[in-house]
Amino acid sequence: MPVTQPFPGGETPGSVMAGEIAEQPAVLSRILGEGAAAIRETARRVAARRPRFALLTARGTSDHAALYAKYLLEIRRGMPCGLTSMSTTTAYGARPGLTDVLVVAVSQSGGSPDLVASTEAARAGGAITVAVTNNPSSPLAAVAEFHVDILAGPERALPATKTYTAELLALYLFVEGLADGDGSAARVLPDLAGRVLDRGHEVRALAGRYRFAERMVLTSRGYGYPTVKEGALKLMETSYIPALSYSGADLLHGPLAMVDNVSPVIAVVPQGRGGEALRPVLDRLRDRGADLVVIGDEREAATASAGFALPTAGVAEEVQPVLEILPLQLLAYEVTIARGQDPDAPRALAKITETR
Amino acid sequence: MPVTQPFPGGETPGSVMAGEIAEQPAVLSRILGEGAAAIRETARRVAARRPRFALLTARGTSDHAALYAKYLLEIRRGMPCGLTSMSTTTAYGARPGLTDVLVVAVSQSGGSPDLVASTEAARAGGAITVAVTNNPSSPLAAVAEFHVDILAGPERALPATKTYTAELLALYLFVEGLADGDGSAARVLPDLAGRVLDRGHEVRALAGRYRFAERMVLTSRGYGYPTVKEGALKLMETSYIPALSYSGADLLHGPLAMVDNVSPVIAVVPQGRGGEALRPVLDRLRDRGADLVVIGDEREAATASAGFALPTAGVAEEVQPVLEILPLQLLAYEVTIARGQDPDAPRALAKITETR
Repeated sequence: MPVTQPFPGGETPGSVMAGEIAEQPAVLSRILGEGAAAIRETARRVAARRPRFALLTARGTSDHAALYAKYLLEIRRGMPCGLTSMSTTTAYGARPGLTDVLVVAVSQSGGSPDLVASTEAARAGGAITVAVTNNPSSPLAAVAEFHVDILAGPERALPATKTYTAELLALYLFVEGLADGDGSAARVLPDLAGRVLDRGHEVRALAGRYRFAERMVLTSRGYGYPTVKEGALKLMETSYIPALSYSGADLLHGPLAMVDNVSPVIAVVPQGRGGEALRPVLDRLRDRGADLVVIGDEREAATASAGFALPTAGVAEEVQPVLEILPLQLLAYEVTIARGQDPDAPRALAKITETR
Repeated sequence: MPVTQPFPGGETPGSVMAGEIAEQPAVLSRILGEGAAAIRETARRVAARRPRFALLTARGTSDHAALYAKYLLEIRRGMPCGLTSMSTTTAYGARPGLTDVLVVAVSQSGGSPDLVASTEAARAGGAITVAVTNNPSSPLAAVAEFHVDILAGPERALPATKTYTAELLALYLFVEGLADGDGSAARVLPDLAGRVLDRGHEVRALAGRYRFAERMVLTSRGYGYPTVKEGALKLMETSYIPALSYSGADLLHGPLAMVDNVSPVIAVVPQGRGGEALRPVLDRLRDRGADLVVIGDEREAATASAGFALPTAGVAEEVQPVLEILPLQLLAYEVTIARGQDPDAPRALAKITETR
């Protein structure tokens, strides 16, 4: 893959992250091939328990995958859904009644003590608990009643990339299983992901734009919203550029004041209803003279200041997030390299973050 | 109040916002005096319906009040709780089954079409619907089964201030009513709020620190987390400084890389369990040489780079957010004035934001 070419030696800055970005088509194939049947069976057993509400628990990158699952559960399964504020359990000792509640904890490592403690408390409170991790022998997998393995293989770079798309796909298959779907809309993803990653040179050209950026704003709506939250985190933890992310609707409720002709904006425009709902926001941004880069919808990408069109013609909107994040991962990598920093090892971070 | 003195004429930049900030002790008194009985009665009628799960719906400043209510519902009432992603209903047409679900929509104006549409859909889907607004004759109040009036009087400045604290107090009284509490912990708030607002000169001294800041990071945990989200929005929409807010735990999962000795950090440290859970984060920030300003806990404020101690000795942690936001409102005002801008009328914003 072109993205790995600048640092073929394996020890040069960013080579680990670049390698893991490039692995994603293979990981997606593995989940669809080796993982899907087990995920479907887990979903069948969970559905038999007839959960009425869902709570999702995660932090960092996995929290963005959890937010994606929230959209899926509400839209595809019609299940009311919330993201957990973990401190209510771990700091304040809240013990809500969780009969009929599905609790899904998402974590690459499965090792963060607060996730383990809150999942254990949820199970004791009567919840149906599912851990989604990259490690079947992790403490989180042990305390949850069910486990979904994301099969991403070891992740060595500090910024999570392949485990994010693996979490998205595993969660998609799980929710489709709950909703009696066959998940076939995901079959195109490995091939399309490969085609997107082959266009690393386009992202490198875009990266020049942000070499000296003091800040960035990312926006989307619907299924694209988790993508911009994850994209902003990726940019921040690698390049240290303050990157703010908002749903398009929330952007109009205040932060728009901060956008002007020196605040670059990246809009992720899904092809589908989320993209349609975002159009009035794009109009407002253009009116304000924002430097607008569009990732996603081909027509919007062509009329923006710059763009990266995704090959999403005929692709179900609910699986597009697996593709949308890829140019943003590449962008975080390229901007960081351009700034002379090492994307593999951002200062101040540890791979397993132990929060309590 | 000292905060209004620089612009006594009523037409000078920021005088409307300053006046509304200064009104808050009176608004809090009004809610406790004239509003509490009606809120308690509404809570009694809602509790009789035995809701098992709560969804909160709001945008912008009101979304931060909704997040506060989420902590209250989980901790004080033990009710699993989620924040609504409105686009699932308005853009994707999701119609989740909402029997036994309490849906609380929070909006100053009660006028945003997406809130009205999603509350209407929730009620049709079987939810117990409560609108919390500053306008009993608003469309949102009309479509919801119950209404809680926040009694803040007309708000003219674009940045919401008094309606935020009014929403917090009304939501506190509502949740305490659900949980059979008497809400007496709130009685001290009008007096304490007045004492905090009398210290505008201290905030003015702090504001100098941020006159040339390119970005700011705000962090807290537990009950203080909604405060930093609202404080960051206030700073952004008035001064246009990009202000990022994180729960302390999430800050350690990535964005910490962005904090160094040129990124000022404001930590809101509640006196209580949220503050205790935040201590390891404060230690990490000090290790990184961050410029750390503490608002809240007296001891932490005294040992930080600078601080604003709140008079919270003996005050229940769950009502402290009503006080915590006040110095941040004053700070947004002062920084904006210092930058020669008008806090009353940020560019690009309308008082009622119509998102669909």
